Amino acid sequence: MKIESVDFFYLSMPQVLDIGDGSQDALLVRIRAGSYEGWGECEASPLTSIASYVCPMSHSACKPLKYSIEGHAINAVSDIQHISDLVHENSLDLLQADHTLSGIDIALWDLLGKITSEPVYQLAGYKKAYPKLPYASQLFGNTPEETYQKAVNTRVAGYRAVKFGWGPFGKLTLNHDREQLQAARHGFGKDGFLMIDAGTAWGEDVKTACMRLNFLNEVNTYWLEEPFFNMTLKSYQALSVQQPLVALAGGEGCNNFVQAQAMIENAGLSFIQIDAGRIGGITVAKRVADLSAKSGVTYINHTFTSHLALSASLQAYAGLKKHFISEYPIELKSLALDISHEKITPDENGYIHIPEGPGLGITVNTAALLKYLVPVEIKVNGNILYSTPEL
Amino acid sequence: MKIESVDFFYLSMPQVLDIGDGSQDALLVRIRAGSYEGWGECEASPLTSIASYVCPMSHSACKPLKYSIEGHAINAVSDIQHISDLVHENSLDLLQADHTLSGIDIALWDLLGKITSEPVYQLAGYKKAYPKLPYASQLFGNTPEETYQKAVNTRVAGYRAVKFGWGPFGKLTLNHDREQLQAARHGFGKDGFLMIDAGTAWGEDVKTACMRLNFLNEVNTYWLEEPFFNMTLKSYQALSVQQPLVALAGGEGCNNFVQAQAMIENAGLSFIQIDAGRIGGITVAKRVADLSAKSGVTYINHTFTSHLALSASLQAYAGLKKHFISEYPIELKSLALDISHEKITPDENGYIHIPEGPGLGITVNTAALLKYLVPVEIKVNGNILYSTPEL
Repeated sequence: MKIESVDFFYLSMPQVLDIGDGSQDALLVRIRAGSYEGWGECEASPLTSIASYVCPMSHSACKPLKYSIEGHAINAVSDIQHISDLVHENSLDLLQADHTLSGIDIALWDLLGKITSEPVYQLAGYKKAYPKLPYASQLFGNTPEETYQKAVNTRVAGYRAVKFGWGPFGKLTLNHDREQLQAARHGFGKDGFLMIDAGTAWGEDVKTACMRLNFLNEVNTYWLEEPFFNMTLKSYQALSVQQPLVALAGGEGCNNFVQAQAMIENAGLSFIQIDAGRIGGITVAKRVADLSAKSGVTYINHTFTSHLALSASLQAYAGLKKHFISEYPIELKSLALDISHEKITPDENGYIHIPEGPGLGITVNTAALLKYLVPVEIKVNGNILYSTPEL
Repeated sequence: MKIESVDFFYLSMPQVLDIGDGSQDALLVRIRAGSYEGWGECEASPLTSIASYVCPMSHSACKPLKYSIEGHAINAVSDIQHISDLVHENSLDLLQADHTLSGIDIALWDLLGKITSEPVYQLAGYKKAYPKLPYASQLFGNTPEETYQKAVNTRVAGYRAVKFGWGPFGKLTLNHDREQLQAARHGFGKDGFLMIDAGTAWGEDVKTACMRLNFLNEVNTYWLEEPFFNMTLKSYQALSVQQPLVALAGGEGCNNFVQAQAMIENAGLSFIQIDAGRIGGITVAKRVADLSAKSGVTYINHTFTSHLALSASLQAYAGLKKHFISEYPIELKSLALDISHEKITPDENGYIHIPEGPGLGITVNTAALLKYLVPVEIKVNGNILYSTPEL
């Protein structure tokens, strides 16, 4: 079977706010072959990613992604690997390529699963998908009081793990951060897993991060996430051995395997967080999961968007029983919720289950998305290279 | 003084060939403040970079580059550093951002130099610019005979160093590679510096690279460049200690400081090659030069485009006397040559000199570029976000 069409859809909330909520817009990819179609989502700037798909060639190693995909065969997992390799070769110097490839690769796995009637995790080599314990992933409140209320609500909703991140944390006073942390713990109760996401607030600055270790330790933080910019190996390594020891998590910014490998092997991480919508899709994410299983670093999905993206991000480590925690966004904008008919929701024991349907096990609700569709037209030299296709 | 306008110009040869020649198109950036203007060049996909400048915000850490630049102050080097920091914060999740920032940052340095009447290298903290020995950088011929002739021509033209790269090298038989290497050495003569650029031909595969070490050693290769994909730290490290020892060069794919730092500290490199048009501009390139000076790894510019880009790439290590070699492209397409009035050419001793004029010391020949201008229009939600401005 051959890839017949690859279509991108830029979706957005009517208003995008200046907050760390990645569910305010989306870039969906639909790939068709024969009577089948697969869907994927890029966790990326929609317009920039579309441009990288259609741009004219600059030279042999800076070709549009289009070049490596349309018309190629899609019959086996090796075909998806081949396309991933082709993109890395043909678009080596096109920086945006990995973000764009991510949605394409996810759609190809979904498509292949539809063709062979298998869930993606089985195609990827796992016999079984283990349930995961979701942590309710959300932004810090603007005040400790707001964070406290969010934490209470999360506990009442039955979650056994919670993460607060971004917002004012790390950007105001030391005391403010301490109050935010205590509000989170008091609201959530003393037993649950509490994760804190600094959202790269301290750049590369180990000293400023160190000043929060006692406070993080006081509230029994399960991990501190992204204290620094991605790939600041030395800063991560230095912080990871400071007293009191606080486990570090990071890696969501990795856009290829070797960056994740460097973070696993040189950054002193306890948890590696991979977004299949950024790292190059499920193909690359699975390779990172294989490495983390061997390295004693726990693999976690990074997901702050739709349930389509959530299913995609879970597939790569579905079969790793010990890696049982998963990010679960609970503050999704209506756009992100409307993307899929199916929702992945916690069972009575608080665990989520990876869909068993073919492919990603998620059906895109195209009718519901029409109102979010952002029309785009890109013209180069008088020729229309992209115009939003029919949804 | 405030930044009043930032304009992008996509230029291209009428026909772009599927070869590793990065001079076939260009993305120029013009920044104006008061009566001054500065120019920069991104070594990047033009359409994709333009899209990243104008795209709508996705969330707080995925804003268009436009957001961090227009209207900001430009009076001192610290203002350029501030803009670089802002872009990294506001466009953290926009992968293309560093490539786009590169041209902007270069234009800001040029602009500031024009305002203060100083060459960029002085603004960057160097008292003096040392001459550099240019190596004639070119593609391998399609056959060993072609490569031999190119090498002869280069010797006759007076160059004391030469690099051959890309083309068929590393992709055909072992014997073909050996013949290519011998043709290069025989044509160039036994005394000159001979560098070989594998153009990432072997991905991550150390074994395949190792099979060429004897041949590289036979022809006294000064360095082997990019045997592997950028950031494959383990592959580089493993190859760097294999017998016979061949010095390794790499890093052109780095798009920020921490990647270059990882390559310097963990890849066993002898030479770090930085393209100011990719790594985030002169600001970031200078930081890498400072680190390499301390680390005993030799800094080299990566440049395969115009003399505007060449001047920009030389500034970051202008004052490092011991780091005396520089990449000098000799097969530029007419577009790249037409970009600047001034050309940086070897003196009677074979050395090149960094321009002493204000800024980059290069004047853009706008009249000559009209015929290469590629008209682009990007429309989102019915609004024109970008339309090629007047050159």
